[in-house]
Amino acid sequence: MTERLVVVGGGAAGMSAASAARRVDPDLDILVLEASGYAAWGLCGLPYYAGGVVGEPDTLVSHPPDWFREVRGIDLQLHTRADALEADRCVVTLDDGTEVGYTSLIVTSGAAPVLPPVAGLDDDRVFTVRTLESAIALRRLLDAGDVRRCLVVGAGYIGLEMAESLVAQGCEVTIAELLPQVMATLDADVAEVVETTVRAHTDLRLGVALRGLWAAPHLVAELADGIRLDVDAVVVATGVGPRATIASAAGAATGPGGALLVDDAMRTSLPDVFAAGDCIAAYHRVLGGPAWVPLGPTANKTGRVAGTVAAGGSARFAGVVGTAVCKVFELTVARTGLTLAEARAHGLAATATDSMARSRAKYYPGVEPTRTRLVHGPDGRLLGAQMVSADPATAKRIDVIATALHAGFDVAALADLDLSYAPPYAPVYDPVLRAAQAVPR
Amino acid sequence: MTERLVVVGGGAAGMSAASAARRVDPDLDILVLEASGYAAWGLCGLPYYAGGVVGEPDTLVSHPPDWFREVRGIDLQLHTRADALEADRCVVTLDDGTEVGYTSLIVTSGAAPVLPPVAGLDDDRVFTVRTLESAIALRRLLDAGDVRRCLVVGAGYIGLEMAESLVAQGCEVTIAELLPQVMATLDADVAEVVETTVRAHTDLRLGVALRGLWAAPHLVAELADGIRLDVDAVVVATGVGPRATIASAAGAATGPGGALLVDDAMRTSLPDVFAAGDCIAAYHRVLGGPAWVPLGPTANKTGRVAGTVAAGGSARFAGVVGTAVCKVFELTVARTGLTLAEARAHGLAATATDSMARSRAKYYPGVEPTRTRLVHGPDGRLLGAQMVSADPATAKRIDVIATALHAGFDVAALADLDLSYAPPYAPVYDPVLRAAQAVPR
Repeated sequence: MTERLVVVGGGAAGMSAASAARRVDPDLDILVLEASGYAAWGLCGLPYYAGGVVGEPDTLVSHPPDWFREVRGIDLQLHTRADALEADRCVVTLDDGTEVGYTSLIVTSGAAPVLPPVAGLDDDRVFTVRTLESAIALRRLLDAGDVRRCLVVGAGYIGLEMAESLVAQGCEVTIAELLPQVMATLDADVAEVVETTVRAHTDLRLGVALRGLWAAPHLVAELADGIRLDVDAVVVATGVGPRATIASAAGAATGPGGALLVDDAMRTSLPDVFAAGDCIAAYHRVLGGPAWVPLGPTANKTGRVAGTVAAGGSARFAGVVGTAVCKVFELTVARTGLTLAEARAHGLAATATDSMARSRAKYYPGVEPTRTRLVHGPDGRLLGAQMVSADPATAKRIDVIATALHAGFDVAALADLDLSYAPPYAPVYDPVLRAAQAVPR
Repeated sequence: MTERLVVVGGGAAGMSAASAARRVDPDLDILVLEASGYAAWGLCGLPYYAGGVVGEPDTLVSHPPDWFREVRGIDLQLHTRADALEADRCVVTLDDGTEVGYTSLIVTSGAAPVLPPVAGLDDDRVFTVRTLESAIALRRLLDAGDVRRCLVVGAGYIGLEMAESLVAQGCEVTIAELLPQVMATLDADVAEVVETTVRAHTDLRLGVALRGLWAAPHLVAELADGIRLDVDAVVVATGVGPRATIASAAGAATGPGGALLVDDAMRTSLPDVFAAGDCIAAYHRVLGGPAWVPLGPTANKTGRVAGTVAAGGSARFAGVVGTAVCKVFELTVARTGLTLAEARAHGLAATATDSMARSRAKYYPGVEPTRTRLVHGPDGRLLGAQMVSADPATAKRIDVIATALHAGFDVAALADLDLSYAPPYAPVYDPVLRAAQAVPR
């Protein structure tokens, strides 16, 4: 049998893996099995496509399928679902029963939405916005002009991005969130700042589950507080979980939340089986162990490592520090490392120091207050940060702190950084430096 | 004699020093001698005041003089110039002959403009924009509506910021620069990108000195290429040098360019004499030795260290990595570490890798090409970076690389960073990561 690399999943991780493998080995037989009708598209762009910022769905696709086939020599099969894996026989089975053999396998099966336990979610006016098909269907409904009132279920970052997109198109939006705060990825008191902004644009209902959904014939949603809403569309963004069963059912070891455990070369516990993207638990440098943080950059990087190593090259993944950013209406909301709640949940002695600083010179147009929470140990060890500001540079300020986390800096070393200064971009002490200075010594 | 701290200079470094000393010792006698009529103002704001972004000069002042006197108990004397120092007698002499004794002295005498060797610079339509008084006079001339054509001499960052401010007010601006490139703080081929933008807004003349200036009665400027220009105002921004003679004449050791040498607590070689701000050579972490990099954040930080230690507290300055940013019309131009030219001038084996990347998701409004030059050793050691883009987040992207320089990262570690991603802020691989990926392994 000739060498054949099979990649399950043609998303960011899968296509990164296939392309990296091709770079290592120009002659390798590379087959990608993608269940949907699209490959190499960015999940993170869906709210912007649904919201009309992106005109055509093709814009979200990095390269069309034929480009992978013709330019990269990658056999990309769309509408092809791999259902089962037998690692001892080196075979995956498709949903039509066909068996596909491999010498190396990379599982990039991604994440699946965790849906609320109610009936009615199969209505064609209910969208999960986890596939390009779902976003196209929502876009079509919006373009038909039939959507005036919307319910978004879930106030995590996807729910809030979708709410913003819908409001921008003139929809009245209600958001129902089961938890008592928006953005569970933030500490509750930081999330309150975001909550205020969300309330200014939407009807936000916290601590309220979706109880039921009826087509009567227009959609009626009932919330746990008894409120009934007549809506034209529902977006369900109640979170995701790793879609790892194809490998875990075959015996691959799993970790946090059922995500696949991998080493720094993306090897699973099964021989010749690699995994990458949203279905794996990546090494978290601040925790010093695996964590499930499903985000685009990690999918791309781990895919690249898996493809490189599977094709015989050398690479390793350096891990994540939990960096993320989200635009929530006029706010930029960013985090890295651990929140105070996460640090304490992991048994770390941690404290939070909050500070406020201007984002630019006080007289320069566009200056915005920037709120920073630094999470640190009693010894000054830097554990994480959260920042909220209407200045978009906040996204890159969190990256400075992420870099400090990679370096293992303490708060004092953060305060020592030689950061750029000019009135249009920062005050003489950047908010990052102010945040570090605010920590009691 | 009671303990008395005397600070020479009431700029950013001087007032930071005095304030830090007060925090350490509530009872210390603190005297600040400032030659001009203003203290605690930001030099970096002058182009924006001259350009009308800032309405009132007071906006550039962090606190008024009485606030320092009344709230901080700092005896701030304006219009008071210290001329000479006798370190063995612990005395400074004012220009009126008065002797002032100290137990500790902090010299923050700043930098002085280096002027071209031509007559006519004393005309009241010629401005150096190194003092608030000079900026106020220029602003007054502009407000009177008498300025249509301007000459800016010097295409460094102050010259370009001033040119932008004048163009924004409808002036026709000619820029004459002695060197063959704009912004000598960049490598020549990176500066060419900036040059193109500057030429789109001004009449830029490179490699041309100012030969003479006459009041006839309107101003006539003659350039070394023989061109004569009738202008209504001239801004001279031909660079600065350390103003260190008060200490160097008293025997203090000096280093690069005549700047004062200090240890990491800002002690000069003279007993009980500290120095801070633009008159010192700070420790450069990439060079591993002193360098003269006169910028606002360093003035503030070194002032704070000097004041803290002079008052009996403990502090140390961690050094600079040469980070700077400048807005040049629509471009953000940023640098950190060493340029290729600087690295080679210091005898380092260095290479440059240039890359281009998008600043945001390709479909997101405001996406701009971002050009990055990474300077690195043949072993991958990171030595510096230059970035040019119309996306203002570039200022904070350079800070990510500055942080990596503080950490001593190599290019591979830079490529490993877990940076924030969302379509409004970055592509899935941030330009910083793309720049690191572009370096051949």
